[in-house]
Order: sequence, then structure tokens, then C-alpha cells
Amino acid sequence: MKVLILGGAGMLGRKLAARLVTHGLARGAVTELILHDIVAGEAPAGAAFKTTVLTGNIADADQSTRLAALKPDVIWHLAAIVSGEAEANFDKGWDINARGSWHLLEALRAQNEASKGAYRPRLVFASSIAVFGAPFPAQIDDDFLCAPQTSYGAQKAITEMLVADYARKGFIDGLSIRLPTVCVRPGKPNAAASGFFSGIIREPLNGLEAILPVSDDVRHWHASPRSAAKFLTHAADLDEAALGGRRSLNMPGVSCTVAEQIEALGRVAGSDAVALIRRVPDDAIMAIVKNWPRDFAPERSPALGFEAESSFDVIIRIYLEDDFEGVRP
Amino acid sequence: MKVLILGGAGMLGRKLAARLVTHGLARGAVTELILHDIVAGEAPAGAAFKTTVLTGNIADADQSTRLAALKPDVIWHLAAIVSGEAEANFDKGWDINARGSWHLLEALRAQNEASKGAYRPRLVFASSIAVFGAPFPAQIDDDFLCAPQTSYGAQKAITEMLVADYARKGFIDGLSIRLPTVCVRPGKPNAAASGFFSGIIREPLNGLEAILPVSDDVRHWHASPRSAAKFLTHAADLDEAALGGRRSLNMPGVSCTVAEQIEALGRVAGSDAVALIRRVPDDAIMAIVKNWPRDFAPERSPALGFEAESSFDVIIRIYLEDDFEGVRP
Repeated sequence: MKVLILGGAGMLGRKLAARLVTHGLARGAVTELILHDIVAGEAPAGAAFKTTVLTGNIADADQSTRLAALKPDVIWHLAAIVSGEAEANFDKGWDINARGSWHLLEALRAQNEASKGAYRPRLVFASSIAVFGAPFPAQIDDDFLCAPQTSYGAQKAITEMLVADYARKGFIDGLSIRLPTVCVRPGKPNAAASGFFSGIIREPLNGLEAILPVSDDVRHWHASPRSAAKFLTHAADLDEAALGGRRSLNMPGVSCTVAEQIEALGRVAGSDAVALIRRVPDDAIMAIVKNWPRDFAPERSPALGFEAESSFDVIIRIYLEDDFEGVRP
Repeated sequence: MKVLILGGAGMLGRKLAARLVTHGLARGAVTELILHDIVAGEAPAGAAFKTTVLTGNIADADQSTRLAALKPDVIWHLAAIVSGEAEANFDKGWDINARGSWHLLEALRAQNEASKGAYRPRLVFASSIAVFGAPFPAQIDDDFLCAPQTSYGAQKAITEMLVADYARKGFIDGLSIRLPTVCVRPGKPNAAASGFFSGIIREPLNGLEAILPVSDDVRHWHASPRSAAKFLTHAADLDEAALGGRRSLNMPGVSCTVAEQIEALGRVAGSDAVALIRRVPDDAIMAIVKNWPRDFAPERSPALGFEAESSFDVIIRIYLEDDFEGVRP
């Protein structure tokens, strides 16, 4: 089985590729992995399958035509520019995050039609809780409206709609999964407004100072990179019939406040780690974060077998197991 | 004030143009009306303002560029191909109902940017309850998700998202109103699957037999053409600040069953009219209709001053007052 990861050079793409090596897919053995991204991805270590690395911009329709012609059996569409960049560069955001997705669906439809319906790949679109916008209920349920307050969120919501309609018409076999904020992100701090959720855990564990730009009572929705990769493979293995007419799923996660994150850090790594968190309130970040979802009550995704961590302590331990390069606390 | 109706030759466009003649807009006097449609519209009778009639296909980006260059102060976007046609002709539906809307928004944004923000028209997008898909709660509230089960519904939902994001960024001043099924539609029966909701009232009032293809317990959501036109002008006059971050509104309407429609017909026009309804069950139409919304509990739109009929009896009387050409019962 040939599989394709769009956005294969990113953090989540790498986690997913590594999981394909260790766990594979229930739907069939992976024989070839194609990694596509704007920069060259890296073949995962220890793979029994062939890895092909391709580069290109999915805003370019030709890229999608070329990729669809390879007829991958499973496609994970993780390619996107992040929220902050999509907000700062309107055209780039819409070109990559929405028109790019539409080109991909059109290219897959062309292959479906050329094959008289024989080719109908499973497409897993990595959507985001950014499709939701304030005001929110205490917990967001599976029937809550999408009213995004960022271009990124609108682009994700529109791609979900396209995926659902192309799937309903039988051109693809597709679904969208709305990922929680992935935490603890490994590596260096990035420019995302959400970066501090990982930073206040990762930096102290590595003996570094971390900046906390929001108040301790900010509540948010998290899942580990390991869970996110598992959501993606589980979505690829899911029985299409179980989705019914609703092909966008809110993923499970852990809802906690920044204070609870810090308490968990204290339990796992002690008060010295906690002391490395420095509070530097940032009004701009607070203004963004106050429009973000805080908590969910997903029912469909757990019923379909998606599972997240049971607590933020577990999320920290997964970081230590999977990504931490120092001496474990 | 220059105003533009896209889809100005259709039933709703004509009703809106006529209302501009009789009631105008609260936001300012209309000095020029531009009617754009694929076929030539007709200037409304008795207008004190100039009417300009233009023809073209909004799937063609050049049309939008030309229309935006006219810098209308208010734009009603009613242009669309109907649900059945969008379902039968996938490309045509997406080209007209979604790409066409996007071209329009891009053309308006270009004018906004060229004018350094001085030009920022009010855009009223005529959306539809087709953005919703089954399963439904007993009543759909203002926070219910969009999960369309037709391409037409997906195209409307995507245009709503685009309108909201272009408005949020300040390129336009826009909102979307989700119209109930407009009933009683004047004129001849049309090919729409929803046509019978009007047909079972209009044909008997005109002494003609009407076919009822669904069972009497089918419940649906209606508003008169007069209300729909009033929604459109009220949306043009609405204070933008009152919308907050949610620029799609479920319009008020009348929820009733086919049996209740027929009882209302009996009260208004007697049992002879009712006797002209012939039951010819049609499985194909029933399969479509069972996925349609049945009832709503809108709170925001009534709070913002949108008002529909109080009963289906009133809807029938409005047909008799506004569109009936025979001798009134």
C-alpha cells in the first residue's frame, strides 16, 4: 500500500511517519511512503518500506496533479501555513490552506473519474480546533457551529466542507479530524501564539527559562504528539460507514488551565523546574488566546475509538519518553 | 446611493427591487439600482431611481471585476444555481455558487485596497437553510453546526465562511442570512424538489390540481417572498457592530407540517381548494426532503429586528395580496 504525507517534513508529519514504521496501518501493509513538503522531509528510521521524498508548494495546482497521478491509497493532508502567518499574509494563507486543498481534491477527483471510480483514496485532513470561535459554551459538543475568528480557521473549515462534499459524491473516501493543540511540541520554541503551552513545560525540563505570556487561569485543549500521530493513523483505518453524513470529528484531548499544567510539571519534575517559568504578560497574545476553545465534550470520536491522554501529567511523561534528549528528572 | 442585486432577474431579486421602490433603505436614498443576472432583469415599476440592467455569468471573474469597479454601496448576492442543478452538475455548481462568490469577494477586496479602505460596501449574501444537514434536533438553534448534505449547501456554507473572513479583515462589511424555503412562490411550478410546498397552495388557489409527493407529516420552515425581501433590506440596514464575530444569521420563519399547510389552505380558500391536492408519493423527493431542516429556534435574528409571519395562514394571505392574479377567494 502506497501512502502519502502532505506536510511530511513538519513535526506532525515526522511523528506520523515514525508511527507508520513502528505500528503500521490496520488496513494493510505500507510498501511505500511518499513525503511531500515545501522542504525535503527525512525518511523515518528503521522503515521496512521505501520512502520517496518530494518537494513542492501545494498552492501550485501542478503539484497536486503530479501527486494524485501517483495514486496513493492513503493521503494525510497536513500541509498548511500556521495561524499567525495566515493572518499576516492573507493571500498566502488562502492560496496554501484553502486553494491548495481544493486543487488536491480536484486532482484526486480527476483520477477517480479517469479510473471510473476504481481509485478512491482515503484522505485524512488534519483540521484544527481553530474552526471554532468565541463565544463558547463551557464545553464544545459535537454539534457546535464553526465560526472561526482567524483566516486559518476559516481555511480549515472550508477545506473540511470540500472534503465532505467530494467524499459524499464518491470522488474520495475522506474525513477531517480537528486536532487539539499539540503539546509538548519537541524542539525549539516557534513563533506560534500557542507556543508557550509547550514552552512552559519543555524549557524547564531542559533547564531553561520559559516565558508565560498569559494568566494562570487560561484553559486550553491539549493532546500529545504521540496521540496526534495515533489519531491520524486511526483515522486512516476507520470504517467509512461509521461516519454517516458527518465527516469532521472533534478529537479527544485534555482540558486544563495553565495553573494545572504547572502543577503537573511540579509533580513530574519538581519545584526547580517550576521556578524557571517567568510571567511576562503579553496583551497581544492574551487577546488571541481568549478566542480559543477551552474545553470539549467529544462523544463521536471516543465512540469511534480515538483516545487521548487521561491527564496533563501523562502528556509531560510522553514528552520525556518520546522527545526529551537530556537526563530524565 | 448605488445598489447592486446579483441574481436580479430571479424571483427574489424582483421582489427585492420592488421593495426598494416602495420602502427604500433606512441607510440612505437609492439613486441607482444595478440588476445583474445571467439573463436581463427588468427595472421595477414606479422607481424614482435609475435602473441599470447588466447580464453575465458570475462564474466569470471578469464580471466581478467589472461590477466591483462600479463601487456599489450595497450589494445583495442572490446569484446561484439551485440545489438540484448543483447536485446534477458538480462543476457548474462549484463554479457559480462558490468560485463565483470568491471572485466577487476578491474583486471587492481589490477595490477596498485600491481606495485604502475607503470603499467597503455592505454585502448581504443570501444563504440557505441547506447549510444544515440531518440528523437534526427538534429545533435548530443559533449554535448548530453546518453539515450540508448537498453540494449546494456546501457552496452556501463556504461562501458564508469567505464573507465572514473578508468582513473580519475589513475588506467588506458583510453578512449572510440563511433564508427559509420561500413560500408561496409565485408563477409556474419549477423543478426544485421543494416546489410542492408552494404548489399545493398556489395551484389550488388558481383552480388547478397540485401534486403532493410527500406524506402529510413532513415538517418544514417557511417564509413568504415578502418577508424574504424584507430580510434582505433589513440586513442591508443592520448595524454591523451588532453582529459581533458571527456574521451568519438563521432567519425567522414559520414551521409547519404539510397537514397544517393544507388546513390553512382550507381556512383561507375552502374545501374545494383542498380537494385539488392529489397525493402521488415520490420516493426520490421524500429521500431528499427527509434531510431538510424542519424547525428552528432563532434568537439572534429576532433580537436584531428580523420578523417573519406569525402563521401559515398569513403566508397564504400574502400570496393572495402580492401575487395572485385571479379572483380572490
